Amino acid sequence: MKKLIIASTSTVHGSEYLGYLLPTLAIFFEKAQTILFIPYARPSGISYDTYTEIAQKAFAKIDKKVKGIHEFENPKQALQQADAIFTGGGNTFELVNQLYKKDVIDTLKNVVENGTPYLGTSAGSNICGVTMMNTNDMPIVYPPSFKTLAFIPFNINAHYLDPIKNSKHMGETRETRIKEYHIFNETPVLGLREGSWLAVTGNQIILKGNLPALLFQKDKEPIELAMKTELNVLLN
Amino acid sequence: MKKLIIASTSTVHGSEYLGYLLPTLAIFFEKAQTILFIPYARPSGISYDTYTEIAQKAFAKIDKKVKGIHEFENPKQALQQADAIFTGGGNTFELVNQLYKKDVIDTLKNVVENGTPYLGTSAGSNICGVTMMNTNDMPIVYPPSFKTLAFIPFNINAHYLDPIKNSKHMGETRETRIKEYHIFNETPVLGLREGSWLAVTGNQIILKGNLPALLFQKDKEPIELAMKTELNVLLN
Repeated sequence: MKKLIIASTSTVHGSEYLGYLLPTLAIFFEKAQTILFIPYARPSGISYDTYTEIAQKAFAKIDKKVKGIHEFENPKQALQQADAIFTGGGNTFELVNQLYKKDVIDTLKNVVENGTPYLGTSAGSNICGVTMMNTNDMPIVYPPSFKTLAFIPFNINAHYLDPIKNSKHMGETRETRIKEYHIFNETPVLGLREGSWLAVTGNQIILKGNLPALLFQKDKEPIELAMKTELNVLLN
Repeated sequence: MKKLIIASTSTVHGSEYLGYLLPTLAIFFEKAQTILFIPYARPSGISYDTYTEIAQKAFAKIDKKVKGIHEFENPKQALQQADAIFTGGGNTFELVNQLYKKDVIDTLKNVVENGTPYLGTSAGSNICGVTMMNTNDMPIVYPPSFKTLAFIPFNINAHYLDPIKNSKHMGETRETRIKEYHIFNETPVLGLREGSWLAVTGNQIILKGNLPALLFQKDKEPIELAMKTELNVLLN
């Protein structure tokens, strides 16, 4: 049975890396000793090793080991044998690019569908949707496809940001960008504010955290979803 | 001889569409009676016709006619016969997608290289760079390539936005995104603030408008460029 935590962000303002999630993760990863870390998104371009150290430091607080997927000779086998998996944030284009280039996207999909617990934050959450088309990231590399893992039947817009009142900037708001997306695509989009996450257990998808999320559907007004909303029921 | 105006935005806060540029455009398009408009970027998903009407209304103020490229049966011929060309802003992914799908990218490159005056704003400016990899837009469609027209030997980040002081949002700043780009790419990036533009005449590229621009180069600190800087000299 699928088990995922799909979080808007790794870090909320003023707290440490994964800090706000650690109590939840201690339960979620209860049966895992070692977590396999996928560092491909390289936030600010940091190396796989440096990024893995950041994850190690956070998970040490709940007595979990972390090993980077790049430390294994065979990344497919690493995924197949993992107790649990965590994909960190960074640039979604580069993350997806590497998942395709290293030919691990199908293996990752299979093991998570078959029950390996999965945590995603930011870019690592974007790839849980049907496509990566609602990322906020810059297209710094050209991935072979925008198709992603489809663990949930909609897309994620991580770090969802409400329009800034009285802004004089003429660039599009997040809402306008998602509206443009729905001119060309049908898949719903969930705008997850920082500090919110989805808890996925089998087919059940529940909104968690302290903030409502925004659901965007083609040709409909966006809806604010209260905490504990079951998205699987809503989108059925 | 190449002649381009590459503008960060069509519209500055509190003024009308193209308003701040019209005095410059009256001179730039002096010899053109009709301007061929490329509406493919569809801001907010508006139709080609609606978008073309917006351009028509603005250019009527300086006695120019505007015709949308979609009104022609043969878009390549339309480009070849145009007095002048204007590509408006919107979504850069969809703009580039249509330029490739309609197979007009080479023709557009050729006619502009051979002297047809070209105005770009926002997405229409991003495509003047070597690639579209520094767009701020959402990847709502998957274009066949990120390569663009390379009228200038660097990339454009339109609507350049300085980091917002005291922001509690954890999403990446524009500067961080461009820094990530330079982990994987060599091409310099010019952050053009709203209200700034480049005037290109042959090989000469001059920064115009009231605001300095930011030049980002791999493994270097970004540099603020004063108005009237000649980028062709600087990057030589």
